[in-house]
Amino acid sequence: MELQELKTTDLKPEEFIEQKIQQLRAQVDGPAVNALSGGVDSSVVTLLGFKALGENLKTYFIENGLMRQNEPQIIAGLFRKMGVPVEIIDAKEEFFTALKGLTDPEEKREAITQTFYKDVFGKMVRQSGAKYLLQGTNYTDVEETVAGIKRQHNILEQLGIDTQQQYGYKVIEPLVQLRKSGVRAVGKALGLPVEIYNRPPFPGPALAARVIGKVTPERIQIVRQATAIVEETLSKTGAFQYLAILHEDRVTGIRAGKRDFGLQIEVRCWESTDAKTGTPTKLPFETLTELAEKITGKVAGVVSVTYNITTKPPSTIEAV
Amino acid sequence: MELQELKTTDLKPEEFIEQKIQQLRAQVDGPAVNALSGGVDSSVVTLLGFKALGENLKTYFIENGLMRQNEPQIIAGLFRKMGVPVEIIDAKEEFFTALKGLTDPEEKREAITQTFYKDVFGKMVRQSGAKYLLQGTNYTDVEETVAGIKRQHNILEQLGIDTQQQYGYKVIEPLVQLRKSGVRAVGKALGLPVEIYNRPPFPGPALAARVIGKVTPERIQIVRQATAIVEETLSKTGAFQYLAILHEDRVTGIRAGKRDFGLQIEVRCWESTDAKTGTPTKLPFETLTELAEKITGKVAGVVSVTYNITTKPPSTIEAV
Repeated sequence: MELQELKTTDLKPEEFIEQKIQQLRAQVDGPAVNALSGGVDSSVVTLLGFKALGENLKTYFIENGLMRQNEPQIIAGLFRKMGVPVEIIDAKEEFFTALKGLTDPEEKREAITQTFYKDVFGKMVRQSGAKYLLQGTNYTDVEETVAGIKRQHNILEQLGIDTQQQYGYKVIEPLVQLRKSGVRAVGKALGLPVEIYNRPPFPGPALAARVIGKVTPERIQIVRQATAIVEETLSKTGAFQYLAILHEDRVTGIRAGKRDFGLQIEVRCWESTDAKTGTPTKLPFETLTELAEKITGKVAGVVSVTYNITTKPPSTIEAV
Repeated sequence: MELQELKTTDLKPEEFIEQKIQQLRAQVDGPAVNALSGGVDSSVVTLLGFKALGENLKTYFIENGLMRQNEPQIIAGLFRKMGVPVEIIDAKEEFFTALKGLTDPEEKREAITQTFYKDVFGKMVRQSGAKYLLQGTNYTDVEETVAGIKRQHNILEQLGIDTQQQYGYKVIEPLVQLRKSGVRAVGKALGLPVEIYNRPPFPGPALAARVIGKVTPERIQIVRQATAIVEETLSKTGAFQYLAILHEDRVTGIRAGKRDFGLQIEVRCWESTDAKTGTPTKLPFETLTELAEKITGKVAGVVSVTYNITTKPPSTIEAV
């Protein structure tokens, strides 16, 4: 069956929600699970799934050590406030062990996928006895995965992987026909808080996708600090997405009058409606200067900050 | 003897030229040589030296394979037009052999220095029988070398290297008290063409300083093409310096709908008067977009272009 896009202009969010709730209730005949990351997609799936299945849905937040500052606590807290129970699973060690020594982006993504599905989340699913897994895959994810541009962590069926046979559960993807803007509209109609349904996208492999080369707790901490500065400085721009990337290349800098062979952070800020194409935001130079000063001033070891000026395509939104 | 800066505001170019011509004639009692790279410093030394010493000065242009497009022919042609004889020495193979496999910036600079002084230029000096080597070292070069920020290729005495003993010639540096702006004023007063005396600085190791990681003929060709685009696009800005850097890190891109794990070029454009401190030029976004489009469109393999937004310090003008 050919997957058909449901354009945001054609989407009627309330009808879509009602229809998906009916479908989920018809499809799911026992306990189901899902993993909440705090992004729009998984947040919409969590609330949609909870409305459809109630206590039959068990929602996990996997703390992989690759998240932004305090993210597990903030996100789980927001959902608990809405009456949706969320369990935080500490899996930092499993992920850093799996990533050890890897530098190739595809190998890193694969290590995270495997650790997530087989080791950590797979174990949760098996322990819970659930036979259904709800996922927030959207239309752009499928398109890019099929085109071979990027391997998203949550596309399995499209790649010919039989999750039922391989992992013991069936994957259900209620948002798979929607672009990001459609998912946001559904999130708003569902009653998610605006900071969730308008949240800038964040990649599946989290901050590991923001580190070129080796992923270690130390390097994740550097990009986490830079990310906090970028998000704090650029949240008011209303841009589609903004991010900090830690490079592996070292560049010459000066600290206290001495040569310092240091780190470089690349900042990207995107104008886009669907992540399919994108244009760098025309940030005022004062903002660019502020970013560079804060990052080189507050993040130890960073001597250079650049700003992406390439459109997508030929660039992608993320670097890794 | 403490080296004293001669501030540009205190400089009287005609008097300075007259004084240096007298000093050179007094110091040099036989054949002298110098190497012309086409930068302001070595160009001023070439013309100053020729005015002082005439045919007693032999000027070489070492083609190290790391130069910009057609640079040896253009520069040598300009000087020949002024009546200054220049000999081009093809030493591409020697330099690429010396650079093979090196990735550390200091090792690369050292390999270029050694190849230049000991092998290529050293051989020229020995063959010519010259006992004097004229060099365009300026005050900022000395300062940064002494401070340990960066190793310039033309500072030997300051580092305690006795060239007379080690290489068989004495180094004379007539511009060593001047900042770049002073060197430009002297160049103008000497009658150099404006495109030479106002030329943006170019590093001693040439395009090798613009390549992070391994220096190969292929990688030099990529950064040479990007450099040509950057210089063509930014020459009208009147900026102090503008450059393209080829990164070693690879980033994800899209070409013809497919994933392309490609190259990244970083563009830097500086406002500065003396290279001691610098600020990124506030280029209009249209110019940044034009740069990114031209570079990703014309330089094979490049999928991403960034713009430096960090001041010096903590950055340096160059990255390597």
